[in-house]
Parts: sequence; structure tokens; C-alpha cells
Amino acid sequence: MTETCPDSLVRFAGHLADAAGEVAQRYFRSGVQAEDKADESPVTIADRTAEAAMRALIEKEFPDHGIIGEEHGSVRRDAEWVWVLDPIDGTKAFLTGKPLFGTLIGLLHKGEPVLGVINQPIINDRWIGGAGHPTTLNGIPARTRPAEKGLGGAVLQTTSPDMFKDGKFAAFERVGKACKFIHWGGDCYGFGLLASGFIDIAIESSLQLYDWAALAPIIEQAGGSLTDWQGKKLEIRDGSFDVVACGDRRMLPAVLDLLNA
Amino acid sequence: MTETCPDSLVRFAGHLADAAGEVAQRYFRSGVQAEDKADESPVTIADRTAEAAMRALIEKEFPDHGIIGEEHGSVRRDAEWVWVLDPIDGTKAFLTGKPLFGTLIGLLHKGEPVLGVINQPIINDRWIGGAGHPTTLNGIPARTRPAEKGLGGAVLQTTSPDMFKDGKFAAFERVGKACKFIHWGGDCYGFGLLASGFIDIAIESSLQLYDWAALAPIIEQAGGSLTDWQGKKLEIRDGSFDVVACGDRRMLPAVLDLLNA
Repeated sequence: MTETCPDSLVRFAGHLADAAGEVAQRYFRSGVQAEDKADESPVTIADRTAEAAMRALIEKEFPDHGIIGEEHGSVRRDAEWVWVLDPIDGTKAFLTGKPLFGTLIGLLHKGEPVLGVINQPIINDRWIGGAGHPTTLNGIPARTRPAEKGLGGAVLQTTSPDMFKDGKFAAFERVGKACKFIHWGGDCYGFGLLASGFIDIAIESSLQLYDWAALAPIIEQAGGSLTDWQGKKLEIRDGSFDVVACGDRRMLPAVLDLLNA
Repeated sequence: MTETCPDSLVRFAGHLADAAGEVAQRYFRSGVQAEDKADESPVTIADRTAEAAMRALIEKEFPDHGIIGEEHGSVRRDAEWVWVLDPIDGTKAFLTGKPLFGTLIGLLHKGEPVLGVINQPIINDRWIGGAGHPTTLNGIPARTRPAEKGLGGAVLQTTSPDMFKDGKFAAFERVGKACKFIHWGGDCYGFGLLASGFIDIAIESSLQLYDWAALAPIIEQAGGSLTDWQGKKLEIRDGSFDVVACGDRRMLPAVLDLLNA
């Protein structure tokens, strides 16, 4: 991320978040039912409508930009600018009436993530961070916190034990046992709170591009790191990644050792 | 619960929730640090100050009432009316900046729970239910939902896998596998959402009196059940209970069979 993301696109990302947020607010706790997708993750009319609202804005304002969306697929993936959209990350939280889901908006420039938004439209928490735009929460600078007490003083976050397949839960638990405590639930919201210095480490498994493209700029521009379980930068490609975010990068080697022990 | 809880005490419980909520709001995301209690659960100055604020109000208005509090112990436990207080249920959520913790206020009359409040002071969600007072969320009637599709269509809620000791996680997982999906995280908030019909089953382990005394009237007055893992009503006594709440009581036998398989 060497170039600065243009202010006009940062503002436009905010409009996208507003549009998706209005849809989510309208359907939240309204009794919407889940349908099951092919991968058995639930989806609702709120997911589909919120993504459609964002796509309509992009098509109108920037018809040459690409779009990769969780619910409605891809167009112009090879464009210079590509928006990566997850209208409701945390559909299970949404369905249970918990205001911890979020809209994720990532922007790729020539295949590199240069902007991210995490927007929680019920609590009204919005993280924005990108190239040349240090991360903010509701307009106030957000920074990760130093790990002064190392892993033993660290707060670990994940969404659910069910996401860890094939022995990966045991790997997660090795890190969990070394940390001060684990907090469960939260999806993208946990990564925002890590960027704000309330959580030290977040570990998740099987994240798709639309799950993490928005997170990388937010975490990195707040002082943290987002990598796979081998410590490598995540690549813009199809397929899923196991990810680890550290508020203080100095913790990463110890976390990787435990994940791969 | 045959008698009606006096309106004056329902109103007073609301004042207690306001007082604790003001303290929680003041300390939320302020960088408060956790101390470890003897049982290794974290506690903060916010927990202690919020409970002290409620106790001061009770001592002033109802000096003959008893108090059982998580942080500051018991007085007049044998009084006709006894308040059971958990100032911040979900201290880990509070510490990670997640607005899903809640203040729990229960009222016992002659040893029977007759009133409960779950108050979330950041989102401003307040459930109240008690004898003669059908459950409300922010003043609007709250009802559990019928389990039209049985266990296979049910949404299950718990706080954390770490709370289940001695093989109890396997029992929980048997129920989880039979349900539509599990949502993790939430502490008392999940029980409130069950009372409002967004969640069908909540299962937790090792709950103390101050964790559940407020929940029982809220769930029962919304149409649901709260029992131990043998289907028995919870007793007002020291020691912990494994609990199961069902929005639709018709699901309880199947849940108990799986828990005790």
C-alpha cells in the first residue's frame, strides 16, 4: 500500500456503508427468515438487498469499477479498482437479533487492498482505514494496543468453534490456553475492536476474500498485522484463508509457533 | 409466582438498572483493566461501582430488603424481599468493547423469583418480566416463538465452549448438532433475545444465583421455560446450576434427552 486512496473514494465507501446500513436497519429484528446457501451458511433477504443497494451505487457512479460480492457474484474483476462487498458479515448474529454483524467494504487498486470499512449499522460503529488514511472509529483515530504483558496478557477473539475444521480447533486452543482469555462471537466486529486496542489477537478459519479484504487495511493502518497461519500476507484470489490478526506484531511469531506446533 | 409484583418495585428495579447503566456507560471502552477474582473470572472497577450504586439505592429506599450481589456479597438474605444483583454479566464482553454485556436485577419474594430485569446500557435494550407483569423489551410485549420445525429448525445460543467442564461440552454439542445453528457469545443478552423470539434454546453451565435469578421471570413471563439439565426448576441456593432455556417448552424433553444421552 504505497499510494494514497483518493479522498473521493473514501467518501464514496461511506455512502456505500450508509446504503447497506439502511437496509440492515430495516430488516433487523423484523422476523426475516434464513435460506440456506449451497455452503449451508444462512443468507436472508437483508443480505441480498443490502448488497444490491451498494452495487447499484457503484454501477451508477463508477461503471468501470469491478465488483466482487458475497451474494451477487463478480463483474469486471480485472478492473483497476475493484470493490469487495460483504453486506452482512455475521448473518447468524443478525438472525439472532444481536447488533454485532457488520457490512464489509473493501477496495482493491491493481489487485492490492487500499481501503476498508467495517460498519455496524445498529450501534453505529464505523471503522475506516486505508492507504494514506490511518484507521478511525467514528472519525476518531484508532490504534492497536501494545502487548506489554506478552501472550499471557493478551485477549483472544474468535467467532465460533464450529468454523475450525480438521484439527484446526486444537491449534486455536493452543493459542487460547496461552492467552489471558478468549471472547467468542463477533465476526468482523472483533477485528474492528482489535484495531481500536480492545482485543489483542483474532484468529479465524476459512475466510473468503469478501470476509477479509476490508479488514487488512483497517488493521494495518491501525498498527497491527493480518496474515495467514504461516505469517504470510493474504493473496487476492479465490479460496479461503485461515487468518490471524495481531494488534502488536511482536506477538505474531509466538502465535504462529502455537498454531503450527 | 402466584402473586403480582407491586408496580412500585417494578419501577424501582428500573431505577436500579438506570444507576448501574450510567456507571457502565462511563467506563465502557475507557481502558479499564481487569483484576482476577478468586475464581479467575475477570472483574473491573465498573462492576464494583455499578453494584455499589444499586446497593446504595436499595439501602436508602428499602433498608429492610435483602441484597445478594456478585461483587459485594450478601446482607439480610432471609428478608421477605431480596434483590439479586449482577452489575455486569459478561465482563469479558465489556472488556473487549462489545455492547453485549448486561446488568441483571432479580427480586425474590419469600424465596421465589418474582421480577427480573436484563438491561443493556449501550444499545439501550431492557427486558422486564415478573409475576403479573408479562415480559417487555423496551416497553413492548416480548414473546418467545413457537418451535414449528422442532429441534432441526431451532437456533441455539451459548456464551463460550470454555464454560462447559467435565465432558459437558460433549453434551452441549449433541444438542448443537441437532439444531439449525449455534450462535456463540452473549451471556444474559442471549436469554433476553430468547424471550423476544429470536433464539429458541439457550444452554449454559455453572450459573450462579446472580446469573439466573433475573432470567427466570423474564423467560417464563414470555412463554418459555428455564430449568436445570434434568428439567427441574432452579432452586434459590448457593452453588451453580447447568441451565437450559426453551422458548417453546415442547422442545424441552428432546433437549434433555440429548443432554443426558
